[in-house]
Amino acid sequence: MTANADQALLPAGLQDLLPPAAAQEAGAVERLIQAFRGYGYDRVKPPLIEFEDALLAGAGAALAQQTFRLMDPVSQRMLGVRADMTTQVARIATSRLSRAPRPLRLCYGGQVLRVTGSQLRPERQFAQVGAELIGSESEHADAEALIMAVSGLNGIGAEGLTVDLNLPPLVAALAERLQLDAEVTQRLRQALDRKDAAAVAQLAGDHAPLFQGLLRAAGPAQDALDDLFALDLPERVQREADRLKRVVALVQAALPDLTLTVDPVEHRGFEYHRGVTFTIYARGVRGELGRGGRYTTDADGGPWEPATGFTLFMDSVLRALPEPAAPARVYVPHAHARTAARLRTDGWQAIAGLVPEDDPAAEARRLGCTHLLKNGDVQPLDDA
Amino acid sequence: MTANADQALLPAGLQDLLPPAAAQEAGAVERLIQAFRGYGYDRVKPPLIEFEDALLAGAGAALAQQTFRLMDPVSQRMLGVRADMTTQVARIATSRLSRAPRPLRLCYGGQVLRVTGSQLRPERQFAQVGAELIGSESEHADAEALIMAVSGLNGIGAEGLTVDLNLPPLVAALAERLQLDAEVTQRLRQALDRKDAAAVAQLAGDHAPLFQGLLRAAGPAQDALDDLFALDLPERVQREADRLKRVVALVQAALPDLTLTVDPVEHRGFEYHRGVTFTIYARGVRGELGRGGRYTTDADGGPWEPATGFTLFMDSVLRALPEPAAPARVYVPHAHARTAARLRTDGWQAIAGLVPEDDPAAEARRLGCTHLLKNGDVQPLDDA
Repeated sequence: MTANADQALLPAGLQDLLPPAAAQEAGAVERLIQAFRGYGYDRVKPPLIEFEDALLAGAGAALAQQTFRLMDPVSQRMLGVRADMTTQVARIATSRLSRAPRPLRLCYGGQVLRVTGSQLRPERQFAQVGAELIGSESEHADAEALIMAVSGLNGIGAEGLTVDLNLPPLVAALAERLQLDAEVTQRLRQALDRKDAAAVAQLAGDHAPLFQGLLRAAGPAQDALDDLFALDLPERVQREADRLKRVVALVQAALPDLTLTVDPVEHRGFEYHRGVTFTIYARGVRGELGRGGRYTTDADGGPWEPATGFTLFMDSVLRALPEPAAPARVYVPHAHARTAARLRTDGWQAIAGLVPEDDPAAEARRLGCTHLLKNGDVQPLDDA
Repeated sequence: MTANADQALLPAGLQDLLPPAAAQEAGAVERLIQAFRGYGYDRVKPPLIEFEDALLAGAGAALAQQTFRLMDPVSQRMLGVRADMTTQVARIATSRLSRAPRPLRLCYGGQVLRVTGSQLRPERQFAQVGAELIGSESEHADAEALIMAVSGLNGIGAEGLTVDLNLPPLVAALAERLQLDAEVTQRLRQALDRKDAAAVAQLAGDHAPLFQGLLRAAGPAQDALDDLFALDLPERVQREADRLKRVVALVQAALPDLTLTVDPVEHRGFEYHRGVTFTIYARGVRGELGRGGRYTTDADGGPWEPATGFTLFMDSVLRALPEPAAPARVYVPHAHARTAARLRTDGWQAIAGLVPEDDPAAEARRLGCTHLLKNGDVQPLDDA
């Protein structure tokens, strides 16, 4: 639950998480990280602020407009408040951890800030949790990232998940092979993003049947793959499609109940990705729960590594979880401090009376407790 | 472990926490919060940034110099990045949770940023964890806060803790009762803070024996209290001393092994406090692990409530903890995904081979695993 009362106390898009939402969010973050550590992903924690130029290098440039800046009187340089943690983790992998064995598995959780919210995500601060798998080209890496994300979400109680798989480099590879010029390619991409079959036909000319076939190859994973493989794809493009098919097979084997869709030409939000990507949704929940896919570290030149990973947006993730249950809580009347300490050791939430009370049961109820310590026993309040 | 290599990548005072330090910090934060929830403290999560004037109201003003500012294009107002979470939690208690039953118990954990580091705490970003108990005047509230802080730290493995108790309003109460003028009081306070007995004698005039007695009433709790109670204190000041004595007795009863000292005139860093305060140290660890004490919410006028609480500084807390043990981790050779999934369910950290390997044991060692899945069994690597 988020309080909307007193909202004017805070700037738009920022909020106080109150009980029980704050505990629910933190608990979900830690349980997700714990799940990722089960796959051997080690936690890293980059700082909230960094030099602007480092934060906005490579893939980070996409968030330049969304990044708060501040002046650092110590370094006399501009800093940015992170709007995303993915590029920070890639920086750690390629600098401080450049000599750690590959594949390198890292995970993270933390808060990010954005200058403006979006329609689907009005929050300007939210928690991100994610993982990166750096240094492997294998389709097993792609599958591991997706399986881990979905399993982690299932583990914290998210239900009705669906995953949409995409292949953002496919259109570029096809345009290059077919020697389409840059402007046509750009307009074709926009038409494909809009699912505008007429515009696609007009722009693709002789290749219209191929591109229209790609547009149709979207939907439930198996049907979409069948449609995709019925097309006469150039060899390099076929290799990308083969990889997508193998990833789908691995994911279906591990998570047979997961609803998987494929849309090979979708590429919005995946401008920096180089292979299979995915977006996770939950039925009935506004906004995506997370997204990820294959990319390369250090896209601005210099040494690079193949990588895959994902980020979960905890504001959306929380919307997919059931309401948290109120905890059992026992009121321990005044002057029973030792008993309160013992109850806590036994796992109880035990509220100690700070002053003598005439009616301990009434005091327990007033404080929202479910139980009362009476005659040395913990008793449910209704019977107390 | 914190990497100092590549430090130039980040502004001074900011750092990447690497494995295993990042997991250790997050784990310590969550276990502390869990301990506080055992006492019935509910978690809240204020935002990283707020309107500057709200953030720096009341006690927050003390951190104005240490607060990063940024311009919010949405509200067209200046925002501050929090340098402390205590005032945020007091704001939540007196606004959104003003109608929640008292005493109100809240806890929190999060990152704060400061414009400059100090000699003792060079970090400009660190995690704060704390709790506030709002709406009780009882000395049991003071004792609960201190006992909970120390028990929480003991619970995560901090050893050799010592607590120094102070009574910052004592000097002001005494000066008022003795009708010392404001300038003399101010200089007397500074001399007391410096433990400058000669200056104290000169400034206190006829009252020199009393103030020198206060200066001597510092050290191990029982001796200091005996010295304090041997002095001829005015009635209102004696009431403060009585409360300090009762708090010491409650803490000693709950934590008989804790080293407690008392220094009644110490008041640096407690300018906004109104009663018993405390600072927690660990033997051999630079900087305080935490501090807290009695204050009032909304010091700038308007309705206020008595409160007590504390904040722990996780950078110092981590220095008081033993090195984390490396986790047991099993390497699962390629194409045993199902077994890896089962091992994770059983609580293992299981790293899956992404490609076929010629020598699984060598690959396991290369990746830092302690165990290997071999012939269907998890085997320690030395025997594998």
